Amino acid sequence: MKKIRAAVVGYGNIGKYVLEALEVAPDFEVAGIVRRASSLGEKNTTGYEVVGSLEELKDVDVAIICTPSRLVEQSAKRALELGIPTVDSFDIHSEIYGVRSRLDEVAKAHGVAAILSAGWDPGSDSIVRALLEVCAPQGVTYTNFGPGMSMGHTVAVKAVEGVKAALSMTIPLGTGIHRRMVYVELEEGQDFQRVAEAIKTDAYFVNDETHIKQVESVAALLDMGHGVNMVRKGASGKTQNQRFEFNMSIDNPGLTGQILVSAARAVLRQRPGAYTMIEVPLVDFLYGEREALIRRLV
Amino acid sequence: MKKIRAAVVGYGNIGKYVLEALEVAPDFEVAGIVRRASSLGEKNTTGYEVVGSLEELKDVDVAIICTPSRLVEQSAKRALELGIPTVDSFDIHSEIYGVRSRLDEVAKAHGVAAILSAGWDPGSDSIVRALLEVCAPQGVTYTNFGPGMSMGHTVAVKAVEGVKAALSMTIPLGTGIHRRMVYVELEEGQDFQRVAEAIKTDAYFVNDETHIKQVESVAALLDMGHGVNMVRKGASGKTQNQRFEFNMSIDNPGLTGQILVSAARAVLRQRPGAYTMIEVPLVDFLYGEREALIRRLV
Repeated sequence: MKKIRAAVVGYGNIGKYVLEALEVAPDFEVAGIVRRASSLGEKNTTGYEVVGSLEELKDVDVAIICTPSRLVEQSAKRALELGIPTVDSFDIHSEIYGVRSRLDEVAKAHGVAAILSAGWDPGSDSIVRALLEVCAPQGVTYTNFGPGMSMGHTVAVKAVEGVKAALSMTIPLGTGIHRRMVYVELEEGQDFQRVAEAIKTDAYFVNDETHIKQVESVAALLDMGHGVNMVRKGASGKTQNQRFEFNMSIDNPGLTGQILVSAARAVLRQRPGAYTMIEVPLVDFLYGEREALIRRLV
Repeated sequence: MKKIRAAVVGYGNIGKYVLEALEVAPDFEVAGIVRRASSLGEKNTTGYEVVGSLEELKDVDVAIICTPSRLVEQSAKRALELGIPTVDSFDIHSEIYGVRSRLDEVAKAHGVAAILSAGWDPGSDSIVRALLEVCAPQGVTYTNFGPGMSMGHTVAVKAVEGVKAALSMTIPLGTGIHRRMVYVELEEGQDFQRVAEAIKTDAYFVNDETHIKQVESVAALLDMGHGVNMVRKGASGKTQNQRFEFNMSIDNPGLTGQILVSAARAVLRQRPGAYTMIEVPLVDFLYGEREALIRRLV
């Protein structure tokens, strides 16, 4: 069996987990890793070729984009323009449709496919949200996150003057309402009350119940676990009170890395264009013959 | 907007709920109901045309097959041969792939699509099972059913000599193990011990913990509620102990009827051939513009 040669573009936290998932996937091999110029000086401990641009790698079947969300579109376009299908986990919800439209155009122009926003939210959670509406079109779905670290909120806290290190934990209170538990390590001589006030009035926190604690070491608190609790109560046809619940408790980058690799398999089975996960048949993400998958899973 | 004209083929329990779901779906209208000859003498209280064969209905865009599973293949083939797309909730797991292969051939020959096994298991549960393997390819999934009535087990009990009415409830004990609570109403002068022994040694019950109770009225116990608890613990890449859980508590025919109607929308968006739900993009099952759905759900 010819294996799918995947390039890992970006080698931060997600890239490392993607590499692990590629190593255990029976149908993939690693074509190499693309890093930004400033990181190329580092000692290469990956066991794979590390280069500065995708063009330098041989026979790449798919590029797995693991750059920060803000750089995803540009990285994906560059790969698509080389005729290489892409997958990414772009996670800025309000911008997904716009990115999809622009990638769709580039992908079609170069005769390849792209799957965007393939993580867990957006991603697998999007699948569950869509499925629950297939089952009960009328009703309300609540997606509750946590307990787990919020990257966006943590970055917002770090931007406050006098903060040396920070961690913002998301705590689910149900019905889509979240508590923010913020842990800060201050620079010498900084006033905790002033910092706490700045955080509480920040746009990221102003609408949520927010508790701020000063700690000696934020590093000692870090954990990449996260969770989701999604609930829907709705009507199927004229039948009321249909109840659904989805829960997960997961290692955050571990799950994102795996879903990206599953999506890298699916993207090769799509016609040219850009797709979110709810636009792709689930069977396409799975390793194995279609007949065996249907017999086992349906 | 031109509405999708759906024919309801078979008007038992599921057919009635399909009709309700069609009535509340904004994009459907009822083309009519097809019943077997022996039921055509009944007074028509449906408000729709009731006929003996699909050919008698006008402008049918899709046929929703609501006959018992054993008759589904034949009903679906007849519709496909008329060039009418079909959906069904065929639920004999071991035979799904065979039915799919045969419907696939007929569907392709007539240039239309069919979606089979579109209920909740097989159906929405199949979607969740597939999704959990996309997220964590290694691991074990347990599907736990109930509490709810098992049609197959109930029929098996009714076949025992001396049983006037019966109900077999499935009680989930976890890890895919189920208890059977069997309620029997006996014919006059029958011996409960003999009946209980016959049930316990029946192939349907011999491997499960089975409790048999004699009751005065089975009718008083009937309830169409059902439930699912699906759990998976697995590895995403090299990351262990990823935990997932899906629960639902639902009206059984109500959910099946709705999923059939959602599938009747999706089938019109597929190329000729036969598909199970895991082979169809989820977005295709939903009412609305693709852009709005992506913005809201992804």
